[in-house]
Amino acid sequence: MNAEIIAVGSELLTPQRIDTNSLWLTDQLNALGVEVTSKTIVGDHRERLAETVRAACARSDIVILTGGLGPTEDDVTRDAVAAALGRTQVFHQDICDGIEQRFRRFNRAMAEINKRQAFVIEGAEVLPNPNGTAPGQWIEDGGRAAMLLPGPPNEMKPLFTGECLPRLQALLPPQVIRTQSYRIALMPESEVDQRIAPVYTKYTNPVTTILAAAGDIQIHLRARCSSEAEAESLLAEVGSQIETILGAWIYAKNADPLEAVVGHALRARAQTLSVAESCTGGLVAERITSVPGASDYFLGGFLTYTDRIKTELVGVPELLLREHTAVSEPVAEAMARGARERTGSTYALSVTGVAGPDGGAEATPVGTVIVGLAGPEACRTRRTRFLGDRDRVRALAAQLALDMLRRELLPSPRW
Amino acid sequence: MNAEIIAVGSELLTPQRIDTNSLWLTDQLNALGVEVTSKTIVGDHRERLAETVRAACARSDIVILTGGLGPTEDDVTRDAVAAALGRTQVFHQDICDGIEQRFRRFNRAMAEINKRQAFVIEGAEVLPNPNGTAPGQWIEDGGRAAMLLPGPPNEMKPLFTGECLPRLQALLPPQVIRTQSYRIALMPESEVDQRIAPVYTKYTNPVTTILAAAGDIQIHLRARCSSEAEAESLLAEVGSQIETILGAWIYAKNADPLEAVVGHALRARAQTLSVAESCTGGLVAERITSVPGASDYFLGGFLTYTDRIKTELVGVPELLLREHTAVSEPVAEAMARGARERTGSTYALSVTGVAGPDGGAEATPVGTVIVGLAGPEACRTRRTRFLGDRDRVRALAAQLALDMLRRELLPSPRW
Repeated sequence: MNAEIIAVGSELLTPQRIDTNSLWLTDQLNALGVEVTSKTIVGDHRERLAETVRAACARSDIVILTGGLGPTEDDVTRDAVAAALGRTQVFHQDICDGIEQRFRRFNRAMAEINKRQAFVIEGAEVLPNPNGTAPGQWIEDGGRAAMLLPGPPNEMKPLFTGECLPRLQALLPPQVIRTQSYRIALMPESEVDQRIAPVYTKYTNPVTTILAAAGDIQIHLRARCSSEAEAESLLAEVGSQIETILGAWIYAKNADPLEAVVGHALRARAQTLSVAESCTGGLVAERITSVPGASDYFLGGFLTYTDRIKTELVGVPELLLREHTAVSEPVAEAMARGARERTGSTYALSVTGVAGPDGGAEATPVGTVIVGLAGPEACRTRRTRFLGDRDRVRALAAQLALDMLRRELLPSPRW
Repeated sequence: MNAEIIAVGSELLTPQRIDTNSLWLTDQLNALGVEVTSKTIVGDHRERLAETVRAACARSDIVILTGGLGPTEDDVTRDAVAAALGRTQVFHQDICDGIEQRFRRFNRAMAEINKRQAFVIEGAEVLPNPNGTAPGQWIEDGGRAAMLLPGPPNEMKPLFTGECLPRLQALLPPQVIRTQSYRIALMPESEVDQRIAPVYTKYTNPVTTILAAAGDIQIHLRARCSSEAEAESLLAEVGSQIETILGAWIYAKNADPLEAVVGHALRARAQTLSVAESCTGGLVAERITSVPGASDYFLGGFLTYTDRIKTELVGVPELLLREHTAVSEPVAEAMARGARERTGSTYALSVTGVAGPDGGAEATPVGTVIVGLAGPEACRTRRTRFLGDRDRVRALAAQLALDMLRRELLPSPRW
C-alpha cells in the first residue's frame, strides 16, 4: 500500500520552517510496510488544498493531512477535504462541549470561533485529541483511508499512534516487520557501501538503507515477512555477514549514539573519564554529558584554548609547546596525562588541532587534529587531517576522540 | 508572482532525509518578492512526477524542480517535464563533450549512460553547471518559467544564483527589497509578539515574521518598495519602534548568534573570558569557540561535573558544597571566581544546575539553573528554572550564561 502526506500551513512555506511531522509519519508508515510516494506542503488556501487532496485521493491508498484544524479562518483543512470528497460537514454538539470544558479547565471562556472545530466531515470517525482542542478525523472508503490530524507534534503523534495506527493495521494484510540497525564511526559512506554492497544487493528482503552524517554512518535493515521467526532469521542472515565485514567498526547494533556507547562501557567497568579539550572547545564533554546519568562516569576536565592555559591548567611543559607547537603528539599526550592526573580519572581524552578557517601551518594545515588517550597503562595518540569547514572539523575531531575511547574499552581493544 | 518547488528523489521520502534545498530557494524567492505557494516531494517515478509538473505549471508562474538530473534510469526529471509539457528532447553534442572532458579531468572515462544528461527539452535554455555533470534547464513560456536544477546543494545554489536569478529578475516588475533582523534571547515568543504586535500589525509593508527557537527569537522585517530610499525609510520607521519597545532585550540587529555578539564585544574591549561549567558540560565553551578567531578572547576553563572536582579544580570550599549543595548561588559564585583567578581572565562564567531527568530536590527541582559571572568589579549570580527535557534545560542554561555576559558588556550594563 502507498501513502502520501500533506502538511497544511503557510508557516511551512517560509525559509525557516521544516515539516518534521512527515519524517516521523514516514517512519511509522514504513514500519507498517507502507511506502510514502509523495509529500506536499500547501499553504492556508482552501481551493489549492482541495485540489491537492483530490489528486492524492485519486492515486494513493492512504492520505494523511496534518495541520489546518485550528479555529480561525486560516484553518481550511476540514473545508478543503469536504470539498475534495464532495461531502458535507456536520456539527457535533459533544465535540463543542468538550472544547468548552477544556477552556474552562484553564479558566478561560471558549471563543465563538472555536465552534468551527466541532464540524465533522460526513461519514468521518472522530479521533479524540486529549492534548488540544482540534479532534482528528478518519475517513475510510473501500479499503482506502484519509485522515486529518492536528499540526502540533505533541498532539499529532499520540493521536496517530493511539487512533490511526490500529485502524491502519486492520486495513493492511497481516505481516511482521522487524528492523536491525548498525552504527559506524569515521568510515566514509562510499567505503561502507563498497564493503557491504556485495551482501545486501543479494537480498530484496530485508531492505537495506545507508544513512550518512559527518563521520557517522547508519545501516538499517528492514525485513517484512509473514512470521516473526522468518523476519528474525532473515535479519540474522544478512546482519551476521555485515558484522563479519565491518567488525569493530560497528560501534552500536541499535540507535545509540557514540557518547551513549562509551558511557555504557565506562559504567559497566566502573571507570571514569576526564577531558582536556583545545580545538573542540568543550564539544567532547558536551556530547558525553548529553547522556542522562553521565555523572556516574564523567568527572570533568579542562578547556585549554591557549598555550599558557595548557601549561597552567594541565601542566604541559612550556618547552614541549615551544619545540613541538600546541598541535603535536607530545602536547596531546601531556594534555591527556595532565587531565588524568589532576582529576584522578581512569581515562582522559585530549584534543588539539587546527579547526580553521585560519591558523594552519605547513606541518599542521587546517583540519589537522591530534587526539590523546591516557589510561591506566599507557597513553596513545592519533593524528589525522579532516577536510571541511570549522564546524565539520570540530565535529569529526570529537567523534574521533569518542571512538578512540570506545575501541580502547572493547573486551579486546581493536584499532 | 507565485512559485512552487518540486524536489525529486526517493531518498527524500525516507524518514531521515529533509529537503533543505527548498528552504534556501524560498529565501531567494521571497527576497525577490515571490511567494512560494506549495512544495512537493516526489520519488523517482516518471508518471507521478509528470502529473505533478502538469498541475504545477497550470497554476503557478514559476516552477522550480530540483534533483533527478543524474545519468541513471532512476533520474526521471527531464523525461517527466518533457512529457508534462508535451515537448520532445534534443541531444546536444556539446554538452556530451563537456561531460566527457569533465571525466577526463578526473582521469576517468565517461560511462555510456552519462549521455542521458546531454538531452535538453525542446525550447529550453541550457544552464551550465560548473560543479557537476548535469546542466540545468530553463523553460520560459509567456511570462512564466520552469527550471530544472540539480539536487546537490553545492551544484544547485550557484546555478540558481548565477543563471536563474537574473532571468527571474527580468521577468519580475522592478522593485527593491530590503530586510532588517532582530534577535532576542530568553523572552518567550508569545511575550515578544504581545509587545510588538501593536506596532507591526499597523503595517502590511514591511512584512514582519517572528521565528522562535529555544530561548532565541528572531524578528524579520521585509520591505518591498519601488525605491531603496523608500524601503529603508519604512524599515527605519517600524524598526525604531520595535527597538524602543524591546531595548536591551535585542542582542543583535543582524543574524549574528549570541556567541558571536559576546565575542565581538570582548574583542573590542580587549578582554578575555574563561568558564567553569557543571550541568552544561562544555556547551557554553563549545558555543563560544564555534566562532572563528575565538582564541582572541577565550582562554579556556573547567568542566566540574562532580563535587570533588569543583573543589580540586576551581577551589570551591568543601564547606560551601556541604552547606548549600552544588546547585546554589555561593557555589556558582565560587566556581566563577575560581575560574577567573586560575586563568587570569577578565570575566568568568559559571553554570551549575539540574538538567534532569533525575537529580532534582525540593529546593532545586529539575530545570533549576544558576549562572555566575565574575568580573573585575564584582560577581553576580542569577537563578532560574527552565521547563523542558535535558537538552532544552542545558541549551537554555548556556543561553542564559551568554546573555548575562552580553548584558554586562553593554556600554551601560542593563539587566
